[in-house]
Amino acid sequence: MFHLSKKIPVGILGATGVVGQKFVELLSNHPLFEIKALGASEKSTGKFYGEAMTWRMAAPLETKIAQFKLHPCTPEHFPKVVFSGLDSSVAGDIETNFAKASFTVISNSKNHRMDEDVPLIIPEVNSDHLNLLNHQSHKGRIVTNPNCSVIGLTTALKPLAQEFGIDKVHVVTLQAVSGAGYPGVSSFDILDNVIPFISGEEEKIEQEPLKILGELKGAAIKPYPMQISAQCNRVAVMDGHMACVSLSLQKKTSEAKDIIDAWKRFGVSFQNNLSLPSLPKETLIYLEDRAHPQPKLHRHLNNGMTVSLGRLQKCPLLDWKFVLLSHNTIRGAAGSAILNAELMLLKGFIKE
Amino acid sequence: MFHLSKKIPVGILGATGVVGQKFVELLSNHPLFEIKALGASEKSTGKFYGEAMTWRMAAPLETKIAQFKLHPCTPEHFPKVVFSGLDSSVAGDIETNFAKASFTVISNSKNHRMDEDVPLIIPEVNSDHLNLLNHQSHKGRIVTNPNCSVIGLTTALKPLAQEFGIDKVHVVTLQAVSGAGYPGVSSFDILDNVIPFISGEEEKIEQEPLKILGELKGAAIKPYPMQISAQCNRVAVMDGHMACVSLSLQKKTSEAKDIIDAWKRFGVSFQNNLSLPSLPKETLIYLEDRAHPQPKLHRHLNNGMTVSLGRLQKCPLLDWKFVLLSHNTIRGAAGSAILNAELMLLKGFIKE
Amino acid sequence: MFHLSKKIPVGILGATGVVGQKFVELLSNHPLFEIKALGASEKSTGKFYGEAMTWRMAAPLETKIAQFKLHPCTPEHFPKVVFSGLDSSVAGDIETNFAKASFTVISNSKNHRMDEDVPLIIPEVNSDHLNLLNHQSHKGRIVTNPNCSVIGLTTALKPLAQEFGIDKVHVVTLQAVSGAGYPGVSSFDILDNVIPFISGEEEKIEQEPLKILGELKGAAIKPYPMQISAQCNRVAVMDGHMACVSLSLQKKTSEAKDIIDAWKRFGVSFQNNLSLPSLPKETLIYLEDRAHPQPKLHRHLNNGMTVSLGRLQKCPLLDWKFVLLSHNTIRGAAGSAILNAELMLLKGFIKE
Amino acid sequence: MFHLSKKIPVGILGATGVVGQKFVELLSNHPLFEIKALGASEKSTGKFYGEAMTWRMAAPLETKIAQFKLHPCTPEHFPKVVFSGLDSSVAGDIETNFAKASFTVISNSKNHRMDEDVPLIIPEVNSDHLNLLNHQSHKGRIVTNPNCSVIGLTTALKPLAQEFGIDKVHVVTLQAVSGAGYPGVSSFDILDNVIPFISGEEEKIEQEPLKILGELKGAAIKPYPMQISAQCNRVAVMDGHMACVSLSLQKKTSEAKDIIDAWKRFGVSFQNNLSLPSLPKETLIYLEDRAHPQPKLHRHLNNGMTVSLGRLQKCPLLDWKFVLLSHNTIRGAAGSAILNAELMLLKGFIKE
Repeated sequence: MFHLSKKIPVGILGATGVVGQKFVELLSNHPLFEIKALGASEKSTGKFYGEAMTWRMAAPLETKIAQFKLHPCTPEHFPKVVFSGLDSSVAGDIETNFAKASFTVISNSKNHRMDEDVPLIIPEVNSDHLNLLNHQSHKGRIVTNPNCSVIGLTTALKPLAQEFGIDKVHVVTLQAVSGAGYPGVSSFDILDNVIPFISGEEEKIEQEPLKILGELKGAAIKPYPMQISAQCNRVAVMDGHMACVSLSLQKKTSEAKDIIDAWKRFGVSFQNNLSLPSLPKETLIYLEDRAHPQPKLHRHLNNGMTVSLGRLQKCPLLDWKFVLLSHNTIRGAAGSAILNAELMLLKGFIKE
Repeated sequence: MFHLSKKIPVGILGATGVVGQKFVELLSNHPLFEIKALGASEKSTGKFYGEAMTWRMAAPLETKIAQFKLHPCTPEHFPKVVFSGLDSSVAGDIETNFAKASFTVISNSKNHRMDEDVPLIIPEVNSDHLNLLNHQSHKGRIVTNPNCSVIGLTTALKPLAQEFGIDKVHVVTLQAVSGAGYPGVSSFDILDNVIPFISGEEEKIEQEPLKILGELKGAAIKPYPMQISAQCNRVAVMDGHMACVSLSLQKKTSEAKDIIDAWKRFGVSFQNNLSLPSLPKETLIYLEDRAHPQPKLHRHLNNGMTVSLGRLQKCPLLDWKFVLLSHNTIRGAAGSAILNAELMLLKGFIKE
Repeated sequence: MFHLSKKIPVGILGATGVVGQKFVELLSNHPLFEIKALGASEKSTGKFYGEAMTWRMAAPLETKIAQFKLHPCTPEHFPKVVFSGLDSSVAGDIETNFAKASFTVISNSKNHRMDEDVPLIIPEVNSDHLNLLNHQSHKGRIVTNPNCSVIGLTTALKPLAQEFGIDKVHVVTLQAVSGAGYPGVSSFDILDNVIPFISGEEEKIEQEPLKILGELKGAAIKPYPMQISAQCNRVAVMDGHMACVSLSLQKKTSEAKDIIDAWKRFGVSFQNNLSLPSLPKETLIYLEDRAHPQPKLHRHLNNGMTVSLGRLQKCPLLDWKFVLLSHNTIRGAAGSAILNAELMLLKGFIKE
Repeated sequence: MFHLSKKIPVGILGATGVVGQKFVELLSNHPLFEIKALGASEKSTGKFYGEAMTWRMAAPLETKIAQFKLHPCTPEHFPKVVFSGLDSSVAGDIETNFAKASFTVISNSKNHRMDEDVPLIIPEVNSDHLNLLNHQSHKGRIVTNPNCSVIGLTTALKPLAQEFGIDKVHVVTLQAVSGAGYPGVSSFDILDNVIPFISGEEEKIEQEPLKILGELKGAAIKPYPMQISAQCNRVAVMDGHMACVSLSLQKKTSEAKDIIDAWKRFGVSFQNNLSLPSLPKETLIYLEDRAHPQPKLHRHLNNGMTVSLGRLQKCPLLDWKFVLLSHNTIRGAAGSAILNAELMLLKGFIKE
C-alpha cells in the first residue's frame, strides 16, 4: 500500500444521514484520509455532531468526531476533498457549487451520475472512466459511484461482458431496509411483509450499468449495448441487497465452469497491481452451497466489500441464471465511494 | 348455492400437520362437508386430536373435533371421501391405497400431481380436466391441486394464454415461511435474512403449469407449449407467496389495459354459473396502487381465495412484467383442495 | 341486543391516522352507529378520504366511505356524536371545543384522561364512572378510554382487586409497533431489535389504573390505593401488547385456582345483562398451555376484544405472576372506544 | 498479557452445534489455545468437520479446521483441556468421564453447574470460587459458566451486592433466538410474535446467581441470601438477551449516581491487574441514552464481552429498576467459557 507523508484532509457533506454516518464510520481510522469537517442542513448547523443526530452505526462514534461542529454545506468550511452523502433533493446544486469552487466531490448521490462528463465508477470495473474528469467544465471534479443495487450487479456482469458479451439481463431484487435511509421504511410496512416497489430503483438498474460497462471514447462514454429489465422489492432484511439475475450471452457456453472461472479471475490482476486500503482481497466470490449467498451470512465478507454469487444454473429462457448479494451501505454506497477516492489518489486525481 | 339433504362425510389424512390443520379449520363449518375422521402417523394414533398436536391456526379448534381420536391412515377408518395433507414422504403409497379401495382422494401432496391419469385442477382454470378421472385405473379417484406457488401463477396466466397465447414466462418468487410447514424454516435462517433456495420448488413451477394449461385429449393431457424459468426465495413473511413475473405473448399488445381487462373478465362467467361455497367473488383482482399487492395487506382478500395482481409494466426483454400474490396455505393449498372437492360434488364426481 | 329505529349518526376526528382508520373499519358496518363525517388536519381538508391517506387496515375500505370529503375538525361539520382518534398534539383543544359546543366526544386520546371530571372507562370494569358525566362543566360530554397497555392490564386486575384487594403491581410490557401509529417505529429500529423505551408509557401505566379502579364519590374519583411499577419495551410484533405482571394481594391465597376462577367469573354477569354489539363473549380468557398467550395466536380472539391470560405462577417476591395479552388497536383503542359509546347509548348518555 | 512458549492444545466437545461452532470461531486464532481435536455425536464421527455441519457463524470457517475429522466424545481422542458445548441430554456423563480421566473440562452446559464441588464462574465476579477445584473428587476438573441470561444479570448485580447488599431481584427477560440453538425456534413461532416461556430458564435465573454471588467457605459455597423472581420471553431478535430488572437494596441510596458509579468502578481493578485476551476493556458499561441498550446496537461492544446497562430509574415497588443487555452466545456462553479457561491458565489450574 502506498503511503502519504500526511493524511489528506476531507469533509463529509450530509454527515447526519445514514450514508453520512457510514462515511464517518469508515473514514474514522482511514490510513489515507482524515475527517476535518462535517456538513449538514441548516437545522443542524452549529450543533455538535454527536448531539445533532442519533448515531446508528455498529462501531461507536469516536469522541473527537462527536465534538465536531456542523457546518452548512458551502465550500468555505471544507477542505478541498469532500465526500457527499447528501439527499438527492439537495445534492445536485450543492455538489455543483463545490465543483465550481475547485473542490473534488466524491458523491454517493444519484443526481450527477448520468451527467455526460461525470464518471460513474466501480474501481475494479471501469477505472479508465476516471479520465472523463479531464473534460469536466468546472475547475473542480465530481465523481460518483452507482446505485446500491447497480454496483453488485455490474461488478458481476463485467467479467461476463468481457469474456462472452452480454445481450440481455433480467433482474429481480430483494433489497434491505437500510437502503431507504432513516427513518426510511416504516415497521408497519415491512414486518411480515414485502413491498414490491422502490421509487426510481428499476430505472437506475436499467440504465446505470450501460454507462459503467460502456467504452470511453474521448470525452464521451458509448453505452454498452445490452438490455436490462428490473423489478425491485423491499424485504425485512437490515443490510444486504440480493438479486436474482438471468442473462443471455453473445458467445454461448454450456459450461457453468466457464462462467464461474470468469468470475474467479476477475479483479485478481487489479488486486495484484493496486494496493488500495478498501479494496477487498476478492471482489467476487462464488459460493458452492446451493442455498447461498444469504444476506445474514455473507454481507460482511471482506468488510462488506465483496460481492457474493451463487446458484448458477442454466435458464430455460435466457442462458444462465444466478443469485448475487452485496452489502448495500458498504460496497453499495459509502465503501465504494471511499474506494473511488483511494483510486483517485493513486491515479493522481487527488493530490497530496 | 346448491344444497344437500345431508352433508358429505369426509376424512382428513395427515391431520396433525400444518396443511392438515388448515383442512380442519376450513372444513369445521363447511356447508357441504362434515369431518368424520382424522388420520395421522403411527406415533399419534389413538390420541385425541387436540392433544396430539399444537394447534397453530388463527381460529380456535372446535371442541368436538379436538376430541376426535386419531386413526392410522388406512381405508377402514374413513368415510369415502378423504382430503390428504400428507407429507410427500408417505403420501404416494397411502393415497394409492385409498384409491384402490374405491375412495375419492382430494390431495394437496405433490406425489401424484404429474401422474398421467391424475387431474391437476384449479377450478376456474381447467375444470374440464376432471374428466381424466374416468380414465383412472383403480376404482377410486385421485384429484390433486398444484403447488402453492403454481396455483396463483397459473391462474394469472390462464386468461392471457386464452386471449393472447404465452411463449415464455420468467418467475422469481418471494415465499412465506408457512409454505415449509412446521417447524419448517428455523428462525436462525430467516430473521434478517433471505434464503435463495427452496428444494424442488423451481422444478414444480417450471412443469406443473404446462399440464394445467394443457389440453385434455381423450385420456391424456397435451402440455401447453411454453417455457418457464423460475428462481425461488424464502423471505420473512408468515403467509402469502409473491412472484415477480415477466412474460412474452404470442399475439402482441401494447396496451396494459388489454391485459388488465383479460384478468378482470376472468372467472366472472364461472362465478356466475357455478355457486361453490369456497369460490371467491373475484378469482383475480388487479390493484392500481403502484406498491401493491403486498402479503400483509392482500393475502386475506375474499378469505384468502383471491389472487392479487399489480404493477403491470412493459418489460424491456419479454413483453410484460407484473407482481402477483396468493395466500399459500389457503388458495395455494387447503382452500384450493376444498374448492376442488366442491366442484367434484357439483359435477357428480362425488355423490351424495 | 337493543335495536334503534335509526342508526345514530357519528363523525370521526383524526380519521386519516391509524386509530382513525381503525375507527372507520370497525364502524363501517356497525349496527348502532353510522359514519356521516370524517375530519382531518388542514392539509387533507377537502380531499376525498380514499385519496388523502393510504388505507392500512385488513378489511378493504368501503367505496362509500372512500368518497367522503374530509372536513376540518370544527363542530359545524359533524353530527352530535364524534369519535376522536386525534393526535395528542391537537386532541386537547379540539375535543374541548366540541364539548363546549354540546357534542359527545368519545376519545381515544390521552389528553383528557386524567381530567377530574372526565370518566376513563372500560365498560366491564367501571361503567358506574359514566356518572361523572353529569358533573362536566361544558354542555357536551367527553368520555375517554385508557391507554392501550392499561386497558388489558386493568381489566385483568379488576376481579383480583374486587375479590382479594391489590397492593402492588409490577409490569413489564412487550408492545407491538402498531401502537406507535404510522409511520411510527422505523424498520431500522425494530428489525432484529428491541427498544426498551416508549415515551410517556410507563407514567400512564403507573397512573391510569388507579383512576379506573377508583371509587366514584359524588363528583370525584378516589384513586384505588395500590402502587404500580412499569417498564415498557417495543418489540417486532405487528399487533398485540403483552405484559409480564407480578402482584401482591391484600387477602392472600395459595391456590392458583382462586385467581383463575376470579378471572373466569369476571364479566359474565355483565355479559348476561347487557347486550352490546362489541362486547366479547368472554372479557378475560385463561389459557392453560404453558407457552400461551402469544400475540400471533390470541390477539384476534373474539374479534380482538378479549384479554388473554396465562402462565399464572407463584412469585418469589410478590404473590403471583402471570402473562397477559390484548389487541392494542382494538381492545386497546378503537374497539374499546366504540364499546364505550355503545354503553353510553344503553345508559342514555347518548340519545337516539 | 502473559505469553506462553507454546499454545495449549485444546479439544471441543459438541463441536457441530451452535455453541460448539462459536467455540471454534472464537478459538480459531486464540493467542493461548490451539484447537487440536473436535468431538461430535456418533452420527457425525469420522466425517470432516466442514462437511458434517452447516457453518452458521459470521466469520468464515478456517480451511484447516474444516478438515479436522470428528471424533467420538471419549477421552482417548482429545488433549488434556476440553471445552464442552455438549447438549445437556448427554453433557452430564461425558463431562464426568473426562474429569475422571484427569481432563480439565470447561463447560457451557447446565448439567454440573449446581454440583457442590463445581465452580460456576464469571471471572470478574467470583474468580476465587476456582479454589473449589481443589475439592473435586475425580482427578480432573470441571469448571462451568452460568446460563446465558444469568451471566449478564449477575455481573450487573455483583457491584451492587458488594456496595449495598441486595435483598430482592425481579427480572423479565427478552431473549434472542440464538439461545435456543439450531434449528431451535421455528420461524412459525417467532415472526410477528413473542413466546412467553423458555423451558427451565426461569429456574436457572432464580438459582444460579445465588451460588455465583455466594461465599466460598472451605469446600462449600454459602449461597448469597436474596430472592429472585424471573419471567422469560423469546423475541424476534437474533443475538442479545435483554432483561428488565427491578431490585431492592439492603443499604439504601436515593442517588442514581451511586449505583452508576458502582457499575463504572466494577472490573477496573480486575482489568488493571489481569491481562486476559478475552477480557473486555469494560465489563459493564452504562449508556445514558434513554432508549438504550438495544440488542442490535450494543451486543457487539468489546467483541460481545461487555454487559450494557441503561434506563436506571427509581422503582415505585422495589428500590431501583434498569435494563441490561448481553450477547448471549459470546459473553453468555462460549466467550465466557474461554475467559474462564484463560483465568484458569493464569491461576495455574491449567498448566503449560
